[in-house]
Amino acid sequence: MARMKRIAAVTPGSAHDIHTALRAEATLILDEDRGMCRSIGEHTLPLMKGATRVLTHCNAGALATGGIGTALAGIYLAHARGQGVHVFSDETRPLLQGSRLTAWELQQAGIPVTVIADNMAASLMREVGIDLVIVGADRIAANGDVANKIGTYGLAIAARHHGVPFYVAAPWSTVDAETATGADIGIEHRDAEEMRSLRGVGTAPVAVAAYNPAFDVTPAALVTAIITDRGVSRAPFDFGASRHSDARSG
Amino acid sequence: MARMKRIAAVTPGSAHDIHTALRAEATLILDEDRGMCRSIGEHTLPLMKGATRVLTHCNAGALATGGIGTALAGIYLAHARGQGVHVFSDETRPLLQGSRLTAWELQQAGIPVTVIADNMAASLMREVGIDLVIVGADRIAANGDVANKIGTYGLAIAARHHGVPFYVAAPWSTVDAETATGADIGIEHRDAEEMRSLRGVGTAPVAVAAYNPAFDVTPAALVTAIITDRGVSRAPFDFGASRHSDARSG
Repeated sequence: MARMKRIAAVTPGSAHDIHTALRAEATLILDEDRGMCRSIGEHTLPLMKGATRVLTHCNAGALATGGIGTALAGIYLAHARGQGVHVFSDETRPLLQGSRLTAWELQQAGIPVTVIADNMAASLMREVGIDLVIVGADRIAANGDVANKIGTYGLAIAARHHGVPFYVAAPWSTVDAETATGADIGIEHRDAEEMRSLRGVGTAPVAVAAYNPAFDVTPAALVTAIITDRGVSRAPFDFGASRHSDARSG
Repeated sequence: MARMKRIAAVTPGSAHDIHTALRAEATLILDEDRGMCRSIGEHTLPLMKGATRVLTHCNAGALATGGIGTALAGIYLAHARGQGVHVFSDETRPLLQGSRLTAWELQQAGIPVTVIADNMAASLMREVGIDLVIVGADRIAANGDVANKIGTYGLAIAARHHGVPFYVAAPWSTVDAETATGADIGIEHRDAEEMRSLRGVGTAPVAVAAYNPAFDVTPAALVTAIITDRGVSRAPFDFGASRHSDARSG
């Protein structure tokens, strides 16, 4: 949006000229987004070698980007190459982005997908076996702490407990070198009503108190690697120092 | 039910006599159940000393028993004694026993309660701070492995990660000395439809696959103590040996 506003502001000429410039910029953004997603996917592929059971949380797929997504990008590419990937998708309460969006888009793409309740992830790791967890990110601090949809932190703890690799895949633009650690990231709390009803169906007593943080912060210590369009980074993460250099390290 | 059937079978005389005997037996069972719950609550109280923020999962309260519940029994007693306990209740997907039953009965009892999505438990422990977790049990193996509502295992892992005590409170009758370990407990899987819709509202794509185990097994190693009407047991648990003796060890 910032880019579109700037174009509108700096383009001289008629409304038609501005429209043409905006259209060109929008197409450029879409192309960049597609390229970014594909790049994340290509950097993810080597980490997915041999993986057939992948768990994800929330939606970081084609529905959330202009391309093939971020966390799901490697999955789309692996599937296209004939690697038999089966995705398990946390439903992601309270807004159910995992069951409503991720499961839907993978189903449309013909990729086998199984929905689980968020509270089943640990059992799934032990009883079924999960080769890796991969999630997106809203914001990544300089030290590698990751802010992402609520539930990501608990999932990372369960993955560590079971020795399952935990990957974060996100655009390089998500890395915020000015934010030293996750402690500097304020957590938004959403309306309790999201926890009390679901499209008109009551899920809890009327007016009961509810805790409803929109996201959580997963400490870098629980993250196996962070995959961006610039490459793969592993601990110790230091995005503060490498912010303006090439992070390709994977 | 087994007791009621036996009474019906062994009581001589008229239908009226059998009715009277069944009524007496039912009252006895209810009294025993009430006493069992109260006993669990009394054994729980010392473990709750100073605790003000308690997290529970599913429903192991008055709605599930003839008395004040099992996991909630100590909470009811602590509240009655003026200990300012605030309960956080996992909603417990997919059937929402935590938000629909536990939150409701605590609200009715005037005990402060806050509903959380299951995936928020780890964040809650870190951001808000939880003094202890207490849950019920469907079945307890001789070695202390605990079968309980799905999600209990992940919660126990999160509790361990944060150094939060994890208690299981259940009737002594739940202890199954004939079952050596949790590995011997078969896990029931329920209809995938429970994960796809909630009272007519779609929560996932029609016909998508869903993983829906009814419960999970928490290994004894993650359990701080098991509280029954006979007392408090701590690791190493050995209910096989103490089955017919007094387990009071707490």
